[in-house]
Amino acid sequence: MKIAVIGTGMVGRTFASRLIGLGHDVVIGTRGVTDTLSRTDQSRPGMPPYSEWQREHPDVGLASFADAGAHGEVIINATAGVATLNALEAVGADNLAGKVLVDIALPLDGAPGQTRSLVVANTDSLGEQIQRAYPDARVVKTLNTVFVEVMVDPARVPGRHNVFVSGDDAEAKSTVATLLAQFGWQPDSIVDLGGIRTARGVEMYASLYFTLAGVLNTFDFNIAIVRNESDTRVS
Amino acid sequence: MKIAVIGTGMVGRTFASRLIGLGHDVVIGTRGVTDTLSRTDQSRPGMPPYSEWQREHPDVGLASFADAGAHGEVIINATAGVATLNALEAVGADNLAGKVLVDIALPLDGAPGQTRSLVVANTDSLGEQIQRAYPDARVVKTLNTVFVEVMVDPARVPGRHNVFVSGDDAEAKSTVATLLAQFGWQPDSIVDLGGIRTARGVEMYASLYFTLAGVLNTFDFNIAIVRNESDTRVS
Repeated sequence: MKIAVIGTGMVGRTFASRLIGLGHDVVIGTRGVTDTLSRTDQSRPGMPPYSEWQREHPDVGLASFADAGAHGEVIINATAGVATLNALEAVGADNLAGKVLVDIALPLDGAPGQTRSLVVANTDSLGEQIQRAYPDARVVKTLNTVFVEVMVDPARVPGRHNVFVSGDDAEAKSTVATLLAQFGWQPDSIVDLGGIRTARGVEMYASLYFTLAGVLNTFDFNIAIVRNESDTRVS
Repeated sequence: MKIAVIGTGMVGRTFASRLIGLGHDVVIGTRGVTDTLSRTDQSRPGMPPYSEWQREHPDVGLASFADAGAHGEVIINATAGVATLNALEAVGADNLAGKVLVDIALPLDGAPGQTRSLVVANTDSLGEQIQRAYPDARVVKTLNTVFVEVMVDPARVPGRHNVFVSGDDAEAKSTVATLLAQFGWQPDSIVDLGGIRTARGVEMYASLYFTLAGVLNTFDFNIAIVRNESDTRVS
């Protein structure tokens, strides 16, 4: 599949690397290609400059937001949630129309390591904001309930655990389920929550998620739904 | 233990009935004892008038909010979240001081069966509001992540699944853990999330919880934490 990954950070790189490994045709989108390639500082401790990462991943393309958007049949929003609407504006409505837009972001304020809250919650969500801003895109919210490494490699957490999909377009959710299965998510672990409105639940789970990460002292965890039925599948 | 259950609704009755069965000395608190006993209508479809329930549970006391509060060493907030602060005002700060105040409520607007949102979320929580309003009470938020029947009888959901406690007072959390164990919660299923601030997470989980209840078409479910460790206990 032709896939655009919007965002050059840790999340974007993790997705691009995994998707290339699966044989997809991947282009990362950035605001300024020259700027991104010329930076030599670590944008975060432990995260090498993009150009260095690029050398180790020669098969991943780098393009402007708009060109990446034009490339992708599937577009993955790997920007920080607070930067998403701004970045998608640069991708452009025309490049998003008809596309499967996979939103994995959390609309968190503050910086990693700080105690953070959501900038949109409860009566709205980032997923809904994106769908409203781009009514012709087929937005699917998913994966934001686990750490990025677990998103693309769920086997890091052993046994049965669940991932959620929210979106108004059934065919788009089916495309996303195919991608999730390629990442290693068992088909019966994927729970279709319903329309994009249900993105509220998975985004608001962030508060419990980050608390649990602190208590457990790891991001290699997830939740499993347990129900009163001999068949424990929920899909 | 001398326990006060604040609220005569389904949640209050379920707790009172269970606690009496466990041998506790239980008094339910209500705004007006005479009013509560004289009502003959079903306050909700399928829920009998209180007087009828009382006849079937003769060992459960009924008293004013204040008298119930005075009785309880442990006070269980079984009111609707939007009514909690008002009810606790009638219980009275003096009757709450030094007590273990178990908050199991969700601050939901709207009515059951409607799509509901929280009246406080994200940067605050009902648990914190209660603790701020009654600094001498020892507030423990717990159990609000499961249906009332599961709260007092976790074996309705088979296998391993988790319950959370949030509160600033370690001794109060230990008392609550003892009660939870009496209900049937396995000691290693009880996750101490930290201070009362972490009530935000378990309250905000309500959105995902109600969506899941709709998808699963049951309230007899819960979540289990799955982590990358041979020992799957989290406590």
